[in-house]
Amino acid sequence: MQQTDHLRDLFPEGFLKRGTVRSVPDGKCLVRQGSHMDTFYLITNGKCGISCDLSNGKTILIRTAHAPCLIGEMELLNDEPAMMTVRAIGECSLLAFDMKEARRILCADHAFLQKLSVLTIRKEHENAVKLICAEAYPLADRLAFFILEHCRGSVFRVKKTEIADSLGASYRHIEKLMDDFVKQGVLQKERCTYLIRDEAKLRELSDGLSELMQRETELE
Amino acid sequence: MQQTDHLRDLFPEGFLKRGTVRSVPDGKCLVRQGSHMDTFYLITNGKCGISCDLSNGKTILIRTAHAPCLIGEMELLNDEPAMMTVRAIGECSLLAFDMKEARRILCADHAFLQKLSVLTIRKEHENAVKLICAEAYPLADRLAFFILEHCRGSVFRVKKTEIADSLGASYRHIEKLMDDFVKQGVLQKERCTYLIRDEAKLRELSDGLSELMQRETELE
Repeated sequence: MQQTDHLRDLFPEGFLKRGTVRSVPDGKCLVRQGSHMDTFYLITNGKCGISCDLSNGKTILIRTAHAPCLIGEMELLNDEPAMMTVRAIGECSLLAFDMKEARRILCADHAFLQKLSVLTIRKEHENAVKLICAEAYPLADRLAFFILEHCRGSVFRVKKTEIADSLGASYRHIEKLMDDFVKQGVLQKERCTYLIRDEAKLRELSDGLSELMQRETELE
Repeated sequence: MQQTDHLRDLFPEGFLKRGTVRSVPDGKCLVRQGSHMDTFYLITNGKCGISCDLSNGKTILIRTAHAPCLIGEMELLNDEPAMMTVRAIGECSLLAFDMKEARRILCADHAFLQKLSVLTIRKEHENAVKLICAEAYPLADRLAFFILEHCRGSVFRVKKTEIADSLGASYRHIEKLMDDFVKQGVLQKERCTYLIRDEAKLRELSDGLSELMQRETELE
C-alpha cells in the first residue's frame, strides 16, 4: 500500500515501535471535542467519522477518515483541547502512542514537521476541491454516498438531523429521500435503524462521488 | 490587527525585512497553477481569488483569501509546481520574497514549521466546517455572497460557468438567479459585465454567510 508507506515515512526511525497495537469496536469514541487528548493515533485499518459540534447546537459530520490516517496531529503540535470528535465506524485497528512522548519526539523532529506541513496543506486543498465538487451532485447521490460511508455492515443509524446538517439539506428533504429509498427497496426501516437491502443501487448512485473522493489529486 | 500579528509572529526575527513591498493591480495573476514559483508572498492588504483547474476542464473558485495571508507556503515546503492559480481581486499590497531564499531560511526554522503546521491544520478544519455549513444556505444567498467576494468596486465579471462550478449549481440556475437580480434592480447588465446597483440588498442576502465565513472559530 503506497499510501500507508507515505504515512509511515512521516515518522522518524523507530517511532512506530513505540505504538501499542489496538483494535477498537464500532462506535468507540476515540476523541471527544473539547477534551484533552492523552493519546495520539495512527489508524491502520478501518475508518472513522469526524464530527464537529457547532456553537448553534448542530452536529455535522465533516468527513470520513480512511486508514491510514492520523488522529490528533493538531493536538500533538499545540497541546490544546481536541477540535473534533472522532468515532470508529465499524471495527478499527490502530497504533496508539502516549501523547506526551509522541509530542516530545515528533515536535523535535524537523523532517517530521516539514512532511506533516506538506501533507496537511495538500489535504486542505484536496478537501476543499472535493467539498466544492461534491455540491454539484444531486442530493440523492450524496445521501447514497453518505449512507455507504457511515454504515456498519448493512446497518445505517445516523440521526436525520445530523445527515441534514452534514449535507446542507433540510430535515424534510432528507426524510423524503430516505422514504423514497425505502419504497424502492433500497433501505428497510427497523425502528430507528435502516438496513441496506440494495447496496448495488446505493453504489450506483454514489459512483461519481466515490470516484471524486478517492482520487488522490484532481489537479491537471 | 490581531490577525496580522498572528501571521507576522510566524516568521523568524528579521525575516520580514527581506521582503519587497509591492502593490499589484486588479486581476494580476500572482501564481499560475502548474508553474514554478520564484516568489513567496505575504498579502498585507486586499484579497485574492484562489482557483483550481480540474482535469475535466472545469475551473472552480475555491475561496477568497483575505489579507493577511500567505501565498505559496506549499511550494515553499516542497518545491513542486503551484497547486492553484491566485489572482488579485482589486488592488493588493504584499510583501514579496525570493522563494529560494525564503525556503533556505524558513525550512530551517523549527518554530516556523511548527506554527505553520498548526495554522494549516486549523485552517483546514475551519474551511471544511465553513464549506459544509455554507451548503445549507439558499443558492441566491450564496450567489450574493460570491458576487460581493469577487467584485471589483461595483463591477462583477466572472464567467457564469465558473460561478456555477464553484457553487455546485447548474449554469441555467445561475443564469436565472442573475436575471432575477437584474429584474429586481440589484444588478445591471452591461455586455459581459454586471454592475452592482443595490449593494445593500446583496449584503442583506449574504449576511448569514458573511458572518459564518468571518468567524475565527465556530467550535463550541
